Amino acid sequence: MFHVNENYLKLPGSYLFSTIGRKVREFQEANPDKTVIRLGIGDVTQPLAPAIIQALHDAVDEMGKAETFHGYAPDLGYEFLRNAIVEGDYRARGVEVYADEIFVSDGAKIDSSNIQEIFAPESRIAVCDPVYPVYVDSNVMAGRTGDYDAETGTWSNVIYMPCTKENNFVPQLPEETPDLIYICSPNNPIGSAMTKDQLQVWVDYANEKGAVILFDAAYEAYISEDNVPHTIYECEGARTCAIELKSFSKNAGFTGVRLGYTVVPKDLKDGDVMLNSLWARRHGTKYNGAPYIVQKAGAAVYTPEGKEQLKKQVAYYMENARVIKEGLKEAGYEVFGGVNAPYIWLKVPEGMTSWQFFDYLLETANVVGTPGSGFGPSGEGYFRLTAFGTHENTAAAMERIKALKK
Amino acid sequence: MFHVNENYLKLPGSYLFSTIGRKVREFQEANPDKTVIRLGIGDVTQPLAPAIIQALHDAVDEMGKAETFHGYAPDLGYEFLRNAIVEGDYRARGVEVYADEIFVSDGAKIDSSNIQEIFAPESRIAVCDPVYPVYVDSNVMAGRTGDYDAETGTWSNVIYMPCTKENNFVPQLPEETPDLIYICSPNNPIGSAMTKDQLQVWVDYANEKGAVILFDAAYEAYISEDNVPHTIYECEGARTCAIELKSFSKNAGFTGVRLGYTVVPKDLKDGDVMLNSLWARRHGTKYNGAPYIVQKAGAAVYTPEGKEQLKKQVAYYMENARVIKEGLKEAGYEVFGGVNAPYIWLKVPEGMTSWQFFDYLLETANVVGTPGSGFGPSGEGYFRLTAFGTHENTAAAMERIKALKK
Repeated sequence: MFHVNENYLKLPGSYLFSTIGRKVREFQEANPDKTVIRLGIGDVTQPLAPAIIQALHDAVDEMGKAETFHGYAPDLGYEFLRNAIVEGDYRARGVEVYADEIFVSDGAKIDSSNIQEIFAPESRIAVCDPVYPVYVDSNVMAGRTGDYDAETGTWSNVIYMPCTKENNFVPQLPEETPDLIYICSPNNPIGSAMTKDQLQVWVDYANEKGAVILFDAAYEAYISEDNVPHTIYECEGARTCAIELKSFSKNAGFTGVRLGYTVVPKDLKDGDVMLNSLWARRHGTKYNGAPYIVQKAGAAVYTPEGKEQLKKQVAYYMENARVIKEGLKEAGYEVFGGVNAPYIWLKVPEGMTSWQFFDYLLETANVVGTPGSGFGPSGEGYFRLTAFGTHENTAAAMERIKALKK
Repeated sequence: MFHVNENYLKLPGSYLFSTIGRKVREFQEANPDKTVIRLGIGDVTQPLAPAIIQALHDAVDEMGKAETFHGYAPDLGYEFLRNAIVEGDYRARGVEVYADEIFVSDGAKIDSSNIQEIFAPESRIAVCDPVYPVYVDSNVMAGRTGDYDAETGTWSNVIYMPCTKENNFVPQLPEETPDLIYICSPNNPIGSAMTKDQLQVWVDYANEKGAVILFDAAYEAYISEDNVPHTIYECEGARTCAIELKSFSKNAGFTGVRLGYTVVPKDLKDGDVMLNSLWARRHGTKYNGAPYIVQKAGAAVYTPEGKEQLKKQVAYYMENARVIKEGLKEAGYEVFGGVNAPYIWLKVPEGMTSWQFFDYLLETANVVGTPGSGFGPSGEGYFRLTAFGTHENTAAAMERIKALKK
């Protein structure tokens, strides 16, 4: 008689964004005359850049002709894309990463949930708190996290590193030693970013303890300050302790196109076993490559026209970040993030929980955000707004929030 | 100190198709004047059908305009595609499957390797022998298969069901009771297909024993005989014991486009836990949807023009199957398959192993196929040719093989 993977049953029932969706739907049904502005989910709104659209059309035409048709892609991704990535994201910054260390995939969410598979089942993980839910949930499914405490919202076998106003949102080295450390910088949901010196502390720590850093750099394109590293490999020693996860979702608007990549340096080893070989084996066995047309679209991101157009797209969203930050300050809120990341993290008014503030904002300003507690216990008392809306909606949302205070 | 997942280290080193690739490369380098014809890998060669190309261009245009841009897709896939699948692949055959039982993905290889995750770690698996390597390898990675015996090419904790000429290539019910049974029909690599009566035996057995059948129907479009079921849900009782895996790779030439789907009926339960909910949870946590443009291409497969064009594409490949089958018979070989599947399975001449025949065919006819032993011990003494080449190459390959005998 077959049985299910019981680890799945440990996952708490309702998913953050489904609960938000339901609350918004109920509000909208009860108030059909109100226009709700959604600054909750981190999904992009701007159309794909012209250079990318052109690359897609060209690739589609190739697929329609026998001479230029493409079947199964190479396991690691097409060389034209892996070379463009190495050149554009690493060599251009003087960072040592090679094409056979790049694994092209259909997105960073997928990679960040699958990467735990190549590690021992008994690996101890450490995560920031608050945190993007996928890191922990994928480890729950693999049976690594112990038991869930509904009261504290934590798992018994996970090391949590609180990131709050009190420690300037920078995680502190944990007392217990983890095997795997998830770090996202620029950070989702907080919108802050580690400086190179701050990240170097973690690289040194990981090398000293024999831990691996799983570095999520999905928001790298939003970095505006000079002392924030664009890749963990800017830090000395990162090639022996860090895997980097990258996405095309936010720098090129690919949330619905699906493309990402993971860097596994050949210097990263357990004894004489290269993690690069293990990840290659997983790719070969459990994946079948990103679509040819999507990989061609990815390569267009690195062309001069692509770069120019995407710089403007990122600037468009960062203008929203500025508007939100200024607007909230004017309305009397304490705000964080939004300088090196498309997320604004605000302190909810004294005496309110994150969810109470969610309801308040939805009911009075008809603006949707994300309660900080949805990202972990240390997110309680905070609230996330995203810069991925349109200029018009973002400005209107801020006018409404400012009007509440008057 | 971190450690790797040791199950990965149990996998035997060299992968079948890499070994073939190396041998062909070496031969070609030593014989630069010879033209090698590749009928080894099951990759398609015909361009995408015009209806699909048009759908792709249209969808790309939508992604270039703010009003029609699409970000994150719904977890299960767009409704337009799930409805088209239900209508075209199930209701049209009078089979009961619902849209919320369809999970759109980026391919059947991915789904067939991931599906084991929602089952208990101690699940016992049964596979046909020979078999598509992904079923077993994904379970090796999950630690379910025991130890590998290099001499027999088998895993200690896997139930093997030999499919040979002696049993007409139909697996027999195993003596030990499995929890999960992988069945592929029409079959890769053998090219045979189960009749509805033969499959019904397995459905009854699974329901009786409380096992789940993981039914790989990737080659369904190639069925030509009336008594071969197009979906396992044509069998009575399959909704309580079977998950079906489907691919767009072979019916629509999507090997480089990437699209597939999995059906998990809501009637399939462990106690009161629906497997449908577990797979939904996995999709939501570890996947982020197939690209919008690819899902639009998938929907075009079900339009009248799409259907018409793809019927011709399938007929093109099946004409190759006929040519291969007739050619091999003329050359004196005993051949199987090729009637309901794009694979031809032949008995290698007495006294030769599968790999010896591979070398013989490469060196004398300069034709590449796949040694049967690469798919499992019971594949020894057999050889696979695929019908996915061009008419020209297929005919030329047969002329060369026939000439050998003269």
